[in-house]
Amino acid sequence: MNKNAFCPTPPMGWNSYDYYGTAVTEEQVKANARAMAEKLKPFGWEYVVIDISWYAHGADGTDQNYFYLPFNTAELDEYARLQPDPARFPSAAGGQGFKPLADYIHSLGLKFGIHIMRGIHRQAAHQHLRIMGTDTTADHIAEPNNVCRWNPYMYGVRNTPEGQAYYDSIIQQYADWGVDFIKCDDICNTDNLNDHTELGYARKHEIEMLSSAIQKAGRPIVLSLSPGPAIIQKSWHYAKHANMWRISDDFWDEWPLLKDMFPRCEIWQDHVKAGCYPDCDMLPVGRLGGGFGRERATGFTRDEQRTMMNLWCLFGSPLMVGAELSLLDDWTLSLLTNQKVLAMLTPDCRPDQIRRTEDEAVWVAENQKTGERYLGLFNLSDQEREVAMDFGDLWPETAQGEELWSGEAVPVAESRLAARLAPHASAVYRLS
Amino acid sequence: MNKNAFCPTPPMGWNSYDYYGTAVTEEQVKANARAMAEKLKPFGWEYVVIDISWYAHGADGTDQNYFYLPFNTAELDEYARLQPDPARFPSAAGGQGFKPLADYIHSLGLKFGIHIMRGIHRQAAHQHLRIMGTDTTADHIAEPNNVCRWNPYMYGVRNTPEGQAYYDSIIQQYADWGVDFIKCDDICNTDNLNDHTELGYARKHEIEMLSSAIQKAGRPIVLSLSPGPAIIQKSWHYAKHANMWRISDDFWDEWPLLKDMFPRCEIWQDHVKAGCYPDCDMLPVGRLGGGFGRERATGFTRDEQRTMMNLWCLFGSPLMVGAELSLLDDWTLSLLTNQKVLAMLTPDCRPDQIRRTEDEAVWVAENQKTGERYLGLFNLSDQEREVAMDFGDLWPETAQGEELWSGEAVPVAESRLAARLAPHASAVYRLS
Amino acid sequence: MNKNAFCPTPPMGWNSYDYYGTAVTEEQVKANARAMAEKLKPFGWEYVVIDISWYAHGADGTDQNYFYLPFNTAELDEYARLQPDPARFPSAAGGQGFKPLADYIHSLGLKFGIHIMRGIHRQAAHQHLRIMGTDTTADHIAEPNNVCRWNPYMYGVRNTPEGQAYYDSIIQQYADWGVDFIKCDDICNTDNLNDHTELGYARKHEIEMLSSAIQKAGRPIVLSLSPGPAIIQKSWHYAKHANMWRISDDFWDEWPLLKDMFPRCEIWQDHVKAGCYPDCDMLPVGRLGGGFGRERATGFTRDEQRTMMNLWCLFGSPLMVGAELSLLDDWTLSLLTNQKVLAMLTPDCRPDQIRRTEDEAVWVAENQKTGERYLGLFNLSDQEREVAMDFGDLWPETAQGEELWSGEAVPVAESRLAARLAPHASAVYRLS
Amino acid sequence: MNKNAFCPTPPMGWNSYDYYGTAVTEEQVKANARAMAEKLKPFGWEYVVIDISWYAHGADGTDQNYFYLPFNTAELDEYARLQPDPARFPSAAGGQGFKPLADYIHSLGLKFGIHIMRGIHRQAAHQHLRIMGTDTTADHIAEPNNVCRWNPYMYGVRNTPEGQAYYDSIIQQYADWGVDFIKCDDICNTDNLNDHTELGYARKHEIEMLSSAIQKAGRPIVLSLSPGPAIIQKSWHYAKHANMWRISDDFWDEWPLLKDMFPRCEIWQDHVKAGCYPDCDMLPVGRLGGGFGRERATGFTRDEQRTMMNLWCLFGSPLMVGAELSLLDDWTLSLLTNQKVLAMLTPDCRPDQIRRTEDEAVWVAENQKTGERYLGLFNLSDQEREVAMDFGDLWPETAQGEELWSGEAVPVAESRLAARLAPHASAVYRLS
Repeated sequence: MNKNAFCPTPPMGWNSYDYYGTAVTEEQVKANARAMAEKLKPFGWEYVVIDISWYAHGADGTDQNYFYLPFNTAELDEYARLQPDPARFPSAAGGQGFKPLADYIHSLGLKFGIHIMRGIHRQAAHQHLRIMGTDTTADHIAEPNNVCRWNPYMYGVRNTPEGQAYYDSIIQQYADWGVDFIKCDDICNTDNLNDHTELGYARKHEIEMLSSAIQKAGRPIVLSLSPGPAIIQKSWHYAKHANMWRISDDFWDEWPLLKDMFPRCEIWQDHVKAGCYPDCDMLPVGRLGGGFGRERATGFTRDEQRTMMNLWCLFGSPLMVGAELSLLDDWTLSLLTNQKVLAMLTPDCRPDQIRRTEDEAVWVAENQKTGERYLGLFNLSDQEREVAMDFGDLWPETAQGEELWSGEAVPVAESRLAARLAPHASAVYRLS
Repeated sequence: MNKNAFCPTPPMGWNSYDYYGTAVTEEQVKANARAMAEKLKPFGWEYVVIDISWYAHGADGTDQNYFYLPFNTAELDEYARLQPDPARFPSAAGGQGFKPLADYIHSLGLKFGIHIMRGIHRQAAHQHLRIMGTDTTADHIAEPNNVCRWNPYMYGVRNTPEGQAYYDSIIQQYADWGVDFIKCDDICNTDNLNDHTELGYARKHEIEMLSSAIQKAGRPIVLSLSPGPAIIQKSWHYAKHANMWRISDDFWDEWPLLKDMFPRCEIWQDHVKAGCYPDCDMLPVGRLGGGFGRERATGFTRDEQRTMMNLWCLFGSPLMVGAELSLLDDWTLSLLTNQKVLAMLTPDCRPDQIRRTEDEAVWVAENQKTGERYLGLFNLSDQEREVAMDFGDLWPETAQGEELWSGEAVPVAESRLAARLAPHASAVYRLS
Repeated sequence: MNKNAFCPTPPMGWNSYDYYGTAVTEEQVKANARAMAEKLKPFGWEYVVIDISWYAHGADGTDQNYFYLPFNTAELDEYARLQPDPARFPSAAGGQGFKPLADYIHSLGLKFGIHIMRGIHRQAAHQHLRIMGTDTTADHIAEPNNVCRWNPYMYGVRNTPEGQAYYDSIIQQYADWGVDFIKCDDICNTDNLNDHTELGYARKHEIEMLSSAIQKAGRPIVLSLSPGPAIIQKSWHYAKHANMWRISDDFWDEWPLLKDMFPRCEIWQDHVKAGCYPDCDMLPVGRLGGGFGRERATGFTRDEQRTMMNLWCLFGSPLMVGAELSLLDDWTLSLLTNQKVLAMLTPDCRPDQIRRTEDEAVWVAENQKTGERYLGLFNLSDQEREVAMDFGDLWPETAQGEELWSGEAVPVAESRLAARLAPHASAVYRLS
Repeated sequence: MNKNAFCPTPPMGWNSYDYYGTAVTEEQVKANARAMAEKLKPFGWEYVVIDISWYAHGADGTDQNYFYLPFNTAELDEYARLQPDPARFPSAAGGQGFKPLADYIHSLGLKFGIHIMRGIHRQAAHQHLRIMGTDTTADHIAEPNNVCRWNPYMYGVRNTPEGQAYYDSIIQQYADWGVDFIKCDDICNTDNLNDHTELGYARKHEIEMLSSAIQKAGRPIVLSLSPGPAIIQKSWHYAKHANMWRISDDFWDEWPLLKDMFPRCEIWQDHVKAGCYPDCDMLPVGRLGGGFGRERATGFTRDEQRTMMNLWCLFGSPLMVGAELSLLDDWTLSLLTNQKVLAMLTPDCRPDQIRRTEDEAVWVAENQKTGERYLGLFNLSDQEREVAMDFGDLWPETAQGEELWSGEAVPVAESRLAARLAPHASAVYRLS
């Protein structure tokens, strides 16, 4: 299987984390899937992804307030493989795993994804559980001092045939369940000096094990790596083994984080290719945080939300909505369903940052197949500001731009297109 | 002008440094140009490049033994522009500059290149020389504490319109002389904490000034940046403004440096595109070091030299010979004129590192236009070793490989091609 | 209690690690204690220290070959406090702990020490054991991702009153047993990026908790911190809370490690004070490694061993012998019992490095109370070499030196004392 | 000469920089000296120090706005030795140097100091001036790429006998002039990656050359090293060769800089000894900045100024006033002449930081000779705050404290002394 064919365009979907944290239940996932099928699917949205802790007993969304639940237990099968907690996922009872839920999602014409942590659960190691298809036990494949910086559930897996057998066994199970997308965490940037050999990339072998296990399982499972920032020196390795990799730490609805995505996209602009997507992380829009016990509307202004969409789409990032979809308001729905903006979201569009300062950014993109040309003007400052593009050198024949949110046509005079933009606002144009 | 069209394939040529150091003379350059025209030109070699210090009074090749000549003078015109030292370049007398020599090189069907140091000469700053086309003097555009770590001749140029005017004035002069290739030094990686703002990339604006000056001058001058290692985070910026950039510090005829080029190529493998070439540096083959007062044969074994050629060509690096060309022996000539190997040297060939350990490396490359496929097997260890490629996943239909140095046909059995290789040796195959 | 009074001179003793690794037994400790009492005690040697893993089930000395025993269990009491493994320490059976063994050591006129790892055992956290004197359980004071880089047994303890209660409870137990010396590991330099707040010194609060617990327990227990290198910026904090702290990573019988101790002593030379000792680590002399299953003589030459003693004593480091004492040969015994050399081992002697290059070092020390002056000449090179001290500036009245190993009197001529030294050899003089 | 005897207590004086920048004149120096003699001398103030650029032609105080004057010239004698610019120091005309001015200062019962930059002036190198007492010229001892990061006047001096001869020649001249104090700049922390060998301490040999030259000259010249932060690993080396060394970058009248001095003093607290003073930098009080063309009152509040005095004196830092002394107001005069506070300023007083958080700090100091004990309570927060000391452990017999600014006696109850302090305020007590 050619893993680049698993997702010829950047994946679009929904992820449970921004609203539900660790606490999402089967019914909530289904409700979001139904909302997606109804309102977003026609615009290309298709993945429904359950984030961290689906196997953790007692996870209630507020647990990460105190660094996950202290030394709680998890649902495991006899082969050290994590299973959905039946308290939250009743259909998983009796060893069914996520198969019933995946079937339901598929019945809506959507795809099903899960989050996993790199490694093997600590409980398996302490209980010396057997590894499927081997004569060994979990204590021999677990590295006891390789514990994630921000979540203590798992131990890293050794680079041995038995370690590969473990990964093969879990991925085969996920394939059997019907999983289409795996977001693997604590693997893209493992900023963990316990292993001094390759700063931030010490678990390269676990990426390769995952990739190999997916090939063996024979199901086209999209592989997404977290957290960022990804290591630019390893770009070739991500591109060889994964479909998307995070270029920042967790992204939330705060302007400094959004502004900071501009230099990140700058660095990665030459690395967007079919099946290979540097990932700007989830879109924290709409209603958020309910599962954390602090439900709220996104902290982004409307201008900032459009700036985010403009950058993600011009750049070519995957789009994963964080909002509770059954609570989606009309404005947010319009944000996510602007077909003219979403048309940029293809690796055929090659992004090119023209300019970036503390105060503004200018990006262009050209579709290599259709010849469509796009321009984004961004005001990164805290004051109103005119941002302009001079086409003299690049595309001197440009005559006008259609702004894709307002629909307005803006003429190009003296090879120049300019916009007066509110703080943090932006405009994106299709040129002709 | 589209700078990527200046060199649609990696530049191939000769550079005076490895043999002559700082001391090369007009006659020696001409002799090398004649040798190139006669023996190498038919195989694609075309650039004749004069390296550092052509303007320095008294430079005699041994000067860098004591950090260049202490506080010596340089040949400058009234506008702070460096001129060839007439003691070594007689045809430059009377303000002719390199024009007569460039004309001669062109008459042989070859192209002419020069080395420059980033910045403005210290003598110009201390003498307050005028900057062409401005009302200012050199002391106002020079940054007095911005001195290269390894050569003290120049001061960095400020990021001002007057600074740009200076760069415009020198590039216009080089264009007028007929220069086709500029190797600018102390600019690609300026590992100089004097400027803490961007470690290793503090002189970004001087790269942009050079690029802009070349566009204004209107002559297709290939821009080559030294020294390395280039900063991978800035790959997009090199690709936007330059044609080639060094990925290592100075490369010489020592195995550890050659072995070290493998991880460097690994990092840069996705960055080879038409007009954009990560540069593995000069080929220190044949006779070297004469101008330094220590003439010698290359320290590389023949196996190592072929390993170097195999890597440079598979990867897609520019090729600049360091040997004195009029002293070229037959074996070295054969090394440089293997058409089947040189056929890989095009950005149409996409390199892909399959595997690298301390002991071996395997690379493949596929020509996107012709479909030709290549395989390189490298023994990086100090013992004889079998190195193999398994085609099962990648190109299962492969039936055999033609080794491009021996001409031998090697069958692929059980999807596997293997070579028994001497220490540091390699084999490169065209597959069918 | 003033902790500096616990050890007015650098502690001298024996530590089980270099010979026994993790496997030492009660009988072996007793045998070494008897050998010390008989042969070394008259020269100031007094501490008998049991190193790592005395609580670990199944520890057999070879376990660290594979990173300690994978997920083995430990002897714990109901309050999460580690107890000696009765399989190796029979007298500890029935909850006696180390009291019987400590009593035996004390009966020989010696002092008793133990090694501990910072933190609380993982088994206690997973079993949610109660913390003495609190309402909380181990899972609430353990930091689940704070695992030592090189030993996985323990979790770090949180900086809370309950965490302090845990440390109080273990130190009180050690005091009750009669412990005189605690070597706490994984605390002096915790080079562990999991905590980014203070690189290498993230567990400052556990040092303070230990120090406070010792004060509360009311027994003068010497506190020794490992591993090094200690953080020089925190020298004041070590000096405030501990009695000795390692200035290097583990020291073994290899010349590069010994040579490397010279720059370490250079840095710490101003920090030797009564009760405050930068620690050069154990003396790997005599028979070593038996408990690891590879018994051997020290790899140091006799010259190197004297160089080690000269440096440790001039500098003022604690002295902990690593040899199996019941196997001590006469020469090694003479090395450890040279009273004239050991006379330098007092903080009254202020060390002063006069000179250090790659090839040699010169140190002097002056006893602030007695006025005795000492000189050490060290050949750090691999060739025979003359090393000299010029007294012109410092002590012009010096007339001669008595070499303290040979007893030879060497005259000072023209204010200069010189020695012709074999590679890695040294000479140490008392001046008059 | 024992350099520690040159200044048995921390030097106290005035420095021209904070008011005059680079532009101070002879008359202004004399006026400040007279003011010192009259008002401050009885309280221990004695050094009058002329800061940077006394040799620079055209220096006018505003020059550092544009990185000193671009490529201006300097007053040099035939031996490459800098001379006072006679335009500003008329008495220096005719080769008198600073002798007449030093004589004047001495006649007031004060001491005379100057600032120098490490190295040799660039003009001397470019003009190939002779080095006194040698056959060599300046271009051979100057390192052409060793230019200070923030001032471009000088080149570093090579570690050769000729380099030492240069330093000998300038220090002998300064001794002949009657200089008592040299503040050498660009030498304490040379954060200059041009020399990768010892980060921040690459010019160790120039410190040793200065120290050696002072010994040879035979005059007790106090050696002060700038800028900081000094490298703690080299504390022993500073202590061996210099009298004071800066522990911060330039200190000005801004609260964040003052707050930041607390962790710096924390690190250096064990390093204050007779003749060896970590230096907190000048006191920017009174009238400042006149020579820069922006005369102003200090930006510190009165509480902050007392906090500064309390810390500097408890810690044991040299005191160098930055104010224009002839403009000194009564309150500032009282700040500088509190004898009870200044009584702490002796190395007999050993400082000891008891506690430091973001919000407060507590220091004590005990005079080893007189037994006097001091306590400082500091509010580092931006709110009013009670700060307290508990004497239970340290000095349980303490009965009361006399606050040294208010004169108020504060009783100690339950072993505790507390103060309610305004933001950034502090109190300092003599205990009894």
